[in-house]
Amino acid sequence: MTSGKSSRDTEADSVQPLTARKPGHPVTLRDVAELAGVSSATVSLIVNKKKDARIGVETRRRVREAINQLGYRPNAMAKNLVSGTSRFIGLVADGVATTPFAGQIIHGAQDEAWKHGFVLLVANTEGDDAVEEDAISMMLEHKVRGILYSTWFHRAAEIPAALNETDFVLVNCFAPGTDAPAVVPNEVQGGRSATEILTRKGHRRIAFINATTPAPARDGRLQGYQQALASAGIPFDPHLVFDAYPDQEGGYAAADKLLDLNVTAVFCYNDRMAMGLYDALVRRGISVPDDLAVVGFDNQEVIAAHLRPPLSSVGLPHYELGAAGVRLLLGIEKPEGYPMVKIECPAVERDSVASTVPA
Amino acid sequence: MTSGKSSRDTEADSVQPLTARKPGHPVTLRDVAELAGVSSATVSLIVNKKKDARIGVETRRRVREAINQLGYRPNAMAKNLVSGTSRFIGLVADGVATTPFAGQIIHGAQDEAWKHGFVLLVANTEGDDAVEEDAISMMLEHKVRGILYSTWFHRAAEIPAALNETDFVLVNCFAPGTDAPAVVPNEVQGGRSATEILTRKGHRRIAFINATTPAPARDGRLQGYQQALASAGIPFDPHLVFDAYPDQEGGYAAADKLLDLNVTAVFCYNDRMAMGLYDALVRRGISVPDDLAVVGFDNQEVIAAHLRPPLSSVGLPHYELGAAGVRLLLGIEKPEGYPMVKIECPAVERDSVASTVPA
Repeated sequence: MTSGKSSRDTEADSVQPLTARKPGHPVTLRDVAELAGVSSATVSLIVNKKKDARIGVETRRRVREAINQLGYRPNAMAKNLVSGTSRFIGLVADGVATTPFAGQIIHGAQDEAWKHGFVLLVANTEGDDAVEEDAISMMLEHKVRGILYSTWFHRAAEIPAALNETDFVLVNCFAPGTDAPAVVPNEVQGGRSATEILTRKGHRRIAFINATTPAPARDGRLQGYQQALASAGIPFDPHLVFDAYPDQEGGYAAADKLLDLNVTAVFCYNDRMAMGLYDALVRRGISVPDDLAVVGFDNQEVIAAHLRPPLSSVGLPHYELGAAGVRLLLGIEKPEGYPMVKIECPAVERDSVASTVPA
Repeated sequence: MTSGKSSRDTEADSVQPLTARKPGHPVTLRDVAELAGVSSATVSLIVNKKKDARIGVETRRRVREAINQLGYRPNAMAKNLVSGTSRFIGLVADGVATTPFAGQIIHGAQDEAWKHGFVLLVANTEGDDAVEEDAISMMLEHKVRGILYSTWFHRAAEIPAALNETDFVLVNCFAPGTDAPAVVPNEVQGGRSATEILTRKGHRRIAFINATTPAPARDGRLQGYQQALASAGIPFDPHLVFDAYPDQEGGYAAADKLLDLNVTAVFCYNDRMAMGLYDALVRRGISVPDDLAVVGFDNQEVIAAHLRPPLSSVGLPHYELGAAGVRLLLGIEKPEGYPMVKIECPAVERDSVASTVPA
């Protein structure tokens, strides 16, 4: 990085920008002072909101008017430097480009950060360790208030050493064997809610196609499925649970095995799996929801809402994960379960589940 | 904003952070100087890369070692303030949370910005005007080098007034009747490439299901379709072009009309439309690609790559739009067509098109 930076500086500074609108000379504190007929120091006191400064109402009014008339923008970086604090929160994300999930974490974190007067510095690593190291260094050099370290799917993560140089919160991931604060989806409750969409409609013979890939989601959703069955007084039958690769191809290939089980309903590990299963069912002349009720997971909008029929699912609370991460980082709340905070996964009912009970 | 900000400051500053790892006292320039046995001024000269400073090799080595040993991080904000420039580029995006497209623009812009020693300040507006105004103000207060103003789908946009206070580039949008620099996808070439996937395999009777919604993509892709036909010596037949809503439901509903046209191939406005069409074709026992060849657009990974059969498509160059936007902003290149720069949409061939010519 060290030698690279200086050559980059040279490159960027030596060329002329092509953009059409060259800004005029930026408005300074002194311009405001001149127009208002006061000293620069007076303007500075007002801009920096020194409450105990003795400045008359009329002077304050004149300065405000001059600020508006000239379109003066205070220098946020200078303010940060003077106050010795920064208004930045860093957000490291590993999958912004490839899934909409990271985007929702950014959205929630930004909304919450702005509410409290903070600005988000977002760095996208796409899982590259070197980029991640650069990203965290950059954030530390900008004296961020703290860092949210987030992953696009819920998993165990190792804490990069540099994170320990500031406050941090893990978002959608956690560090086993540590007391690092983490905000993650409540997979058990999510699996329970998905299954309850089916039990509430009278289904009692319910298959669960779980993922082949080990993950907290795999264990948690199975546990939730078992809890929902127990609540409905349905004995758990391990023969009704089997694994498939968690994508369309996995769901498609699972159809024959599923149909052999003679169930009235199935909970699929995710919406992509349900999409592949739908396709296999259509080709066999089997109707959703009349012949088979189907529930997915993830509530991946572009898929779940637009299948035929639209798929009932359980959403991952990415927006809320980002927002809760910021609240934890700033010490605004200390929710139940801290340092491991679990966020509810909301059920979204559409048309893929019919009642087994005659109306 | 003004009165809101001060109350937010109070809120954030008055509570104790809950995060586990409180950072120790941060390492200062003075700590480095003490350990290295040199003056703070000497350390400052080395950290700030003053090339002409007369400092011996041995002193430089000692200071470097002290920096590494203590883990000293220079204060980027102080550096910016002293140098009178900032290393920030702002990126305003209107759809980070809802589509993966904006994420790819962020990824491309960030990679290119970092290459040149800049850091991206990302603000997500989800199309909210008030949030957009706040976002641009925030960026101007941080004295950004310039702003990329981006939209998640290619469209005409009005330039927010505050953008004129700095350099800016429009990304995935453009401002009609202005000479504002803009980077957009080449829709005409994209439509041509999509159609050529079909003509190259011998198809001559090719339908185009366009979007009902007016957009540069709608006009451009039609023009590209016509160009590809002309290149292949196929007369344009307007009866083979009709509109549908650009999602799964639109594609599903278009099937009967399409089948009446007696074509061997169809180019769908987007992948979502092709997904709905696939579903309608399966229900009619019509096989892709043997009975009908299908090409989509967008190359939306979660759909196109996982349909049965996987869908040939044309990708939107979002990563490249973000990267080119940064290069334009920094004046690194002035590509053909400036101030309206069009980026190629790459064809991605999968298994949804068979040859009409016997092997």
